Amino acid sequence: IRQGFAEVVFCQGKTVEQVQAIVQRLAEYNHSILATRASKEMYTAVKAVVADAEYHELARLITVERQKPPVDSERFILVMSAGTSDIPVAEEAAVTAEIMGNEVRRVYDVGVAGIHRLLDQRQLIEQANVLIVVAGMEGALASVVGGMAAKPVIAVPTSIGYGASFGGLAALLSMLNSCAAGIAVVNIDNGFGAGRLASIINQMR
Amino acid sequence: IRQGFAEVVFCQGKTVEQVQAIVQRLAEYNHSILATRASKEMYTAVKAVVADAEYHELARLITVERQKPPVDSERFILVMSAGTSDIPVAEEAAVTAEIMGNEVRRVYDVGVAGIHRLLDQRQLIEQANVLIVVAGMEGALASVVGGMAAKPVIAVPTSIGYGASFGGLAALLSMLNSCAAGIAVVNIDNGFGAGRLASIINQMR
Amino acid sequence: IRQGFAEVVFCQGKTVEQVQAIVQRLAEYNHSILATRASKEMYTAVKAVVADAEYHELARLITVERQKPPVDSERFILVMSAGTSDIPVAEEAAVTAEIMGNEVRRVYDVGVAGIHRLLDQRQLIEQANVLIVVAGMEGALASVVGGMAAKPVIAVPTSIGYGASFGGLAALLSMLNSCAAGIAVVNIDNGFGAGRLASIINQMR
Amino acid sequence: IRQGFAEVVFCQGKTVEQVQAIVQRLAEYNHSILATRASKEMYTAVKAVVADAEYHELARLITVERQKPPVDSERFILVMSAGTSDIPVAEEAAVTAEIMGNEVRRVYDVGVAGIHRLLDQRQLIEQANVLIVVAGMEGALASVVGGMAAKPVIAVPTSIGYGASFGGLAALLSMLNSCAAGIAVVNIDNGFGAGRLASIINQMR
Amino acid sequence: IRQGFAEVVFCQGKTVEQVQAIVQRLAEYNHSILATRASKEMYTAVKAVVADAEYHELARLITVERQKPPVDSERFILVMSAGTSDIPVAEEAAVTAEIMGNEVRRVYDVGVAGIHRLLDQRQLIEQANVLIVVAGMEGALASVVGGMAAKPVIAVPTSIGYGASFGGLAALLSMLNSCAAGIAVVNIDNGFGAGRLASIINQMR
Amino acid sequence: IRQGFAEVVFCQGKTVEQVQAIVQRLAEYNHSILATRASKEMYTAVKAVVADAEYHELARLITVERQKPPVDSERFILVMSAGTSDIPVAEEAAVTAEIMGNEVRRVYDVGVAGIHRLLDQRQLIEQANVLIVVAGMEGALASVVGGMAAKPVIAVPTSIGYGASFGGLAALLSMLNSCAAGIAVVNIDNGFGAGRLASIINQMR
Amino acid sequence: IRQGFAEVVFCQGKTVEQVQAIVQRLAEYNHSILATRASKEMYTAVKAVVADAEYHELARLITVERQKPPVDSERFILVMSAGTSDIPVAEEAAVTAEIMGNEVRRVYDVGVAGIHRLLDQRQLIEQANVLIVVAGMEGALASVVGGMAAKPVIAVPTSIGYGASFGGLAALLSMLNSCAAGIAVVNIDNGFGAGRLASIINQMR
Amino acid sequence: IRQGFAEVVFCQGKTVEQVQAIVQRLAEYNHSILATRASKEMYTAVKAVVADAEYHELARLITVERQKPPVDSERFILVMSAGTSDIPVAEEAAVTAEIMGNEVRRVYDVGVAGIHRLLDQRQLIEQANVLIVVAGMEGALASVVGGMAAKPVIAVPTSIGYGASFGGLAALLSMLNSCAAGIAVVNIDNGFGAGRLASIINQMR
Ligand SMILES: Nc1ncnc2c1ncn2[C@@H]1O[C@H](COP(=O)(O)O)[C@@H](O)[C@H]1O
Ligand SMILES: Nc1ncnc2c1ncn2[C@@H]1O[C@H](COP(=O)(O)O)[C@@H](O)[C@H]1O
Ligand SMILES: Nc1ncnc2c1ncn2[C@@H]1O[C@H](COP(=O)(O)O)[C@@H](O)[C@H]1O
Ligand SMILES: Nc1ncnc2c1ncn2[C@@H]1O[C@H](COP(=O)(O)O)[C@@H](O)[C@H]1O
Ligand SMILES: [Mg+2]
Ligand SMILES: [Mg+2]
Ligand SMILES: [Mg+2]
Ligand SMILES: [Mg+2]
Ligand SMILES: [Mg+2]
Ligand SMILES: [Mg+2]
Ligand SMILES: [Mg+2]
Ligand SMILES: [Mg+2]
Repeated sequence: IRQGFAEVVFCQGKTVEQVQAIVQRLAEYNHSILATRASKEMYTAVKAVVADAEYHELARLITVERQKPPVDSERFILVMSAGTSDIPVAEEAAVTAEIMGNEVRRVYDVGVAGIHRLLDQRQLIEQANVLIVVAGMEGALASVVGGMAAKPVIAVPTSIGYGASFGGLAALLSMLNSCAAGIAVVNIDNGFGAGRLASIINQMR
Repeated sequence: IRQGFAEVVFCQGKTVEQVQAIVQRLAEYNHSILATRASKEMYTAVKAVVADAEYHELARLITVERQKPPVDSERFILVMSAGTSDIPVAEEAAVTAEIMGNEVRRVYDVGVAGIHRLLDQRQLIEQANVLIVVAGMEGALASVVGGMAAKPVIAVPTSIGYGASFGGLAALLSMLNSCAAGIAVVNIDNGFGAGRLASIINQMR
Repeated sequence: IRQGFAEVVFCQGKTVEQVQAIVQRLAEYNHSILATRASKEMYTAVKAVVADAEYHELARLITVERQKPPVDSERFILVMSAGTSDIPVAEEAAVTAEIMGNEVRRVYDVGVAGIHRLLDQRQLIEQANVLIVVAGMEGALASVVGGMAAKPVIAVPTSIGYGASFGGLAALLSMLNSCAAGIAVVNIDNGFGAGRLASIINQMR
Repeated sequence: IRQGFAEVVFCQGKTVEQVQAIVQRLAEYNHSILATRASKEMYTAVKAVVADAEYHELARLITVERQKPPVDSERFILVMSAGTSDIPVAEEAAVTAEIMGNEVRRVYDVGVAGIHRLLDQRQLIEQANVLIVVAGMEGALASVVGGMAAKPVIAVPTSIGYGASFGGLAALLSMLNSCAAGIAVVNIDNGFGAGRLASIINQMR
Repeated sequence: IRQGFAEVVFCQGKTVEQVQAIVQRLAEYNHSILATRASKEMYTAVKAVVADAEYHELARLITVERQKPPVDSERFILVMSAGTSDIPVAEEAAVTAEIMGNEVRRVYDVGVAGIHRLLDQRQLIEQANVLIVVAGMEGALASVVGGMAAKPVIAVPTSIGYGASFGGLAALLSMLNSCAAGIAVVNIDNGFGAGRLASIINQMR
Repeated sequence: IRQGFAEVVFCQGKTVEQVQAIVQRLAEYNHSILATRASKEMYTAVKAVVADAEYHELARLITVERQKPPVDSERFILVMSAGTSDIPVAEEAAVTAEIMGNEVRRVYDVGVAGIHRLLDQRQLIEQANVLIVVAGMEGALASVVGGMAAKPVIAVPTSIGYGASFGGLAALLSMLNSCAAGIAVVNIDNGFGAGRLASIINQMR
Repeated sequence: IRQGFAEVVFCQGKTVEQVQAIVQRLAEYNHSILATRASKEMYTAVKAVVADAEYHELARLITVERQKPPVDSERFILVMSAGTSDIPVAEEAAVTAEIMGNEVRRVYDVGVAGIHRLLDQRQLIEQANVLIVVAGMEGALASVVGGMAAKPVIAVPTSIGYGASFGGLAALLSMLNSCAAGIAVVNIDNGFGAGRLASIINQMR
Repeated sequence: IRQGFAEVVFCQGKTVEQVQAIVQRLAEYNHSILATRASKEMYTAVKAVVADAEYHELARLITVERQKPPVDSERFILVMSAGTSDIPVAEEAAVTAEIMGNEVRRVYDVGVAGIHRLLDQRQLIEQANVLIVVAGMEGALASVVGGMAAKPVIAVPTSIGYGASFGGLAALLSMLNSCAAGIAVVNIDNGFGAGRLASIINQMR
């Protein structure tokens, strides 16, 4: 609730009542609100007191949009995911960037084991102004995209995987050691942080 | 040797002869060159064959500057370090950004245990267009700066420390878990990567 | 149940019946009692047999106060938390210190990403006789407070966070590597241990 | 010295005298010999007593070739490396496979950050009978090649990298979590093991 | 769904509806289908729309077999498990190999602590064309079998165990460090990957 | 150089020239100085320019004592070590506390495997005002002393040990999990930090 | 089901039906049986088909005692636990040793923070023929007992603890690094293994 | 220097002078002495002052044998090693057991990848009274021997290996998770501890 024009609430570890109360109070000040890691139950409670709240189920986000920011539709943020299981984290990033006033495009399920599906997106990758790459398992997508794009790439490791993925550690280490320059990494499953940073970068001029 | 206008050579793990040969060949094509993790001995060998090579001892970088890129001196990258031992990594980042055509300012030795020395730099932190925060030990500087700056912050954990710093792991985990939004992290001691990414972001418009 | 004037029971891993029986027996000897990590259900069972038992829900503590110790209200222990999710651990520390006969003041939700909210507490930080700093995620609060206070700082890492926080490991390592001198660390989520040690220090003369 | 037609000696941790003695004894039985992790000094000592010994400097291998096995030049093993620093491990694999009677082709320095250099090798990748992929840092090459090849891929993580590569751990975990099927992994820097297994597979019919 | 003639669906982390829809769609194209990590509930939903779907309860696999591939019954894949608790992973490997058109034989519960039960299988081990060794706890079976077999051995560590097995890490490290040559390792519990790779190798000529 | 009346210099990672220059400058202001992790060579260089510098070889400390602080010889800090190899870290703690104006007593080589040698020190343990326990290997001394003393115990894990001590990790975890209350832990080998904190506590009233 | 005169069944990960069937079959051969990690529900199912089965609730063991082995009551195994939460593992060890024909004595809740309660048991510790020390948290009890006893000590780390105990890792490392000679360690929570080994040693002559 | 009839000195981390002085003093009391991890240089210094000192180069032990204990040659300790590189640790165990008055037999280089060389030793394994199994890499030898022997097995993991052996961690975890009962484990490379414990067990009656 500190930076930027949208107030952000991290719901994980809070009770339904706490989330409801916090969002209600913020809504009174006519702020745009982004509540992350929110359950459907939390949304129902919020909706009862803030009529214009919306729920993004996949992304687990509650949004309240007041004072819509102007969007420069030329400069878009490209959000990519390696697998379908990574989509919730990708959506957390995408919706975060959208509510902060950015044009967002999505390219999901383009893991590197099917390199042609990824190469088919070459043009989009080259046109994007900022890129967010979301991947679990071995997280290799970040390196390939990092090599294709000249613009900043924000890599988000996810906890998707099993066994030696150790809760996202494999993807995290992989992304930190990427042989492509121009990449930076956020915490495992931190779609929000990636969306927030992408928005800051995208709005620089 | 893939991205951007300066050719980059990673010298660690290469012999003096290999580095000399690679830089000599690149210099023939009139490229600007950045050789990272270069020892003084490597520099001497390179200098013998490429007369305009320069050495940045602290940063352990060899640079060959051809076709100087124009610099927008209004938009500067601020490179900060927590301790004096972190300066080599900070310099790697700073010189990398400079050779890629950016105005760079430096604020070193402003660890959070002396919060006033850091707060004295508030204006610079708010004016910077991109920030690079270099810190070992507990890496807390990234979070404090992340909270003060509205612009992108690239955090570089260093291997400075002992005992439970486990070669930079403590600073790395600390930065990944930063409570400040708008921060992204690169590999431990990866000043080059931070400088490269900061340059990309700084030159967007 | 070994040291100090209050008998301490660690309820985690015990059954409701076991906790009830232990507290009942101790109460017969007219001891003050502190039962940590106690569920509400345990409290109900204890209350049925020890009428003056009280429950501190947030702190998950049952207390029975007999022979109230005299409190020196000049020398206070300051308990600080970085986030709201850290409050249960902070309260465990605070109530522990209180039942052991100390004046306790609380300053919660002053994470370093909002450094001004923390600096607003400067006076309290300088006046405190002992400080307990409770923080999860990157645990940076300990270093900043450690730099501001001349008195002993006890740092308590919490398991709050996700991904690369690895159950509190990030905050723990961060605090152990603090660049501020005069800090010592207890186990992850060990509010009780911090409160106990702070009380011992606070009552020295 | 147990499996296959070539006697294998692991020199690491042995003295120059021990290696010399072992190789001399094996040579008397007219065996082909492969000595891995051998220093140049060891080679000189061996050469003094076994005249037809040869040294592969990059691979750190001593070989003695007797009874040259017939080679099926149609079925080749393709050894690929991501970076130039990975070449010693790649060569250990390649020479091992060669002395065991296989046709070997090499494609080095095709890291995924330059995906086109890799795609240029598509035909070779599709024609290879067995593939060995050697990579340090984030080890992403294994996944991309795994997706392109229909034949078995043996992935060898290397200890090349720094910081959060943790001695090859990042590449190892990355390869174990590869999203491409048909990949198996050997120990960090174990070029010999990869070459040996590739040879066994390549000679099946 | 990328490689080989059978379409593969990884059900873990997908909803019953998603699995049902994906399998139904694939079945329309008359593909053979393998759905791994599938619950019985998923099977019931699939069966309702794809009549010839079958469930392998132990292996947690749904299969739809169209265009049965010809099987060379001379060349068999031997799937071995150390304990009875490892059987689900072993079965995942075995059924995967079968649906891809291979003769498969099974030898279960031959852990190395009872070396004679293992040695009784010597003939089968020597006759097998490819071997899959599935083991949790200390994973020693892979090394012993690796020493007995001249053919490729694919080792699958499992998460079976407790305490210092750390979710399969002990078996994984053990297998990666095997003193027997000719072994390669897949991810913890990755029976599918082992079966897939064994099939590729078994069908080479 | 931030807290307390003695200026502190951390020499590790600095050159001999840097240490000499820093100490010389501080000495001009007539400050007491404590330089930690100082080699004998550094001392020689310092001595050449600051005549009253002293060297504590075992502790690897250079001290310059100006304005000797008054010492309350009744209240002493007890520094204990488990083994003889832990003495350098113990001495770092002890001399640090001494230069900060405290009475210090030492009890070395009282590891718990010889419990009687430890129990012989019972009286000293009970009389001490603050205790510093220095131990490597399994670090058990902290728990036993923690149970015997009613005063604050600062535990310092050391990197002494081999194998599964993992550079002091075993002792660190052991001390963090101590079953004795009233203990806090500093970084592995951080004798300075322990001495500093003990001094702060010892001088409270 | 391999070693010793009692058949052993490891129930964890088996279904109630599987356990019932295995025990029933073994009982037909008139074997003594020990089923570890057995739930009450498993016991009820077993009891229905094997009338003389008994349940040790704390130890989670089902036993069927046929052919009672003679017990040498002079030579006893001493089972000690540090905390009350460690008792289930201690009982697993104790009952295992008893059914294998050993005299067993128990001393529970003698953690080292209350060293006098432990020293009160000195005589028993010196008289014991074999000692089993069960402890979680920091596991220091093993070192102190190891120093007091001249006979073999088997240390069993438990997963009791929280935070930086990391599921028993702290106690495990502590015991492996014990400064007392004559100690060996089994897996975390492996009371069965300790009881089994103690029995083997106790019956040697 | 606490338990048993031979005084033990751990030389690692001590200076040549310290070792010389300690051994000289002990020799005056006519004690048998065992100095572990001793360099040849230390031996030379000791020999100069204690004429009957002997050096066991492979084992890195200095011994001084006074009052030779009687040896029961029927009951022997069998020391086994998996590889030749493990022999130094095995010898440390063997010589330790010998100086403490035990008959010791050695069987080296019987790693499980050559199971027949191991099975050839079956008789010796069954006759041994106590067994010490020394192995690095994957440490599988302990499990196989544990299954063959009815007597106590002490497993010693070694740091021999590379890559994912992580300094002996792989062998350590492997041995702790052994599927054979009757095994206990000591620290990585701790030959002394194993020899000491084996001696204690071997001399029980
Ligand atoms: N200090 C550094 N850390 C990480 N990557 C680097 C560094 N310096 C250069 N690189 C990368 O390494 C590549 C050159 O590697 P090489 O071809 O081995 O010299 C460049 O394209 C950079 O992306
Ligand atoms: N570079 C290597 N990495 C892993 N194992 C190896 C290597 N080179 C040889 N080996 C194995 O080591 C055995 C020989 O070991 P040794 O008898 O100690 O020389 C061979 O049979 C191989 O299985
Ligand atoms: N041995 C030590 N371990 C940890 N921190 C230290 C040590 N010695 C000094 N310090 C800290 O390092 C600071 C000085 O660092 P520097 O300015 O780099 O010399 C002091 O203020 C102390 O807080
Ligand atoms: N609690 C336990 N922990 C470790 N190993 C056990 C345990 N209980 C039984 N075992 C071992 O498991 C084997 C039986 O396993 P199973 O055949 O799967 O029932 C026995 O021979 C023992 O060696
Ligand atoms: Mg790029
Ligand atoms: Mg910010
Ligand atoms: Mg302070
Ligand atoms: Mg493939
Ligand atoms: Mg083999
Ligand atoms: Mg105490
Ligand atoms: Mg003992
Ligand atoms: Mg046995």
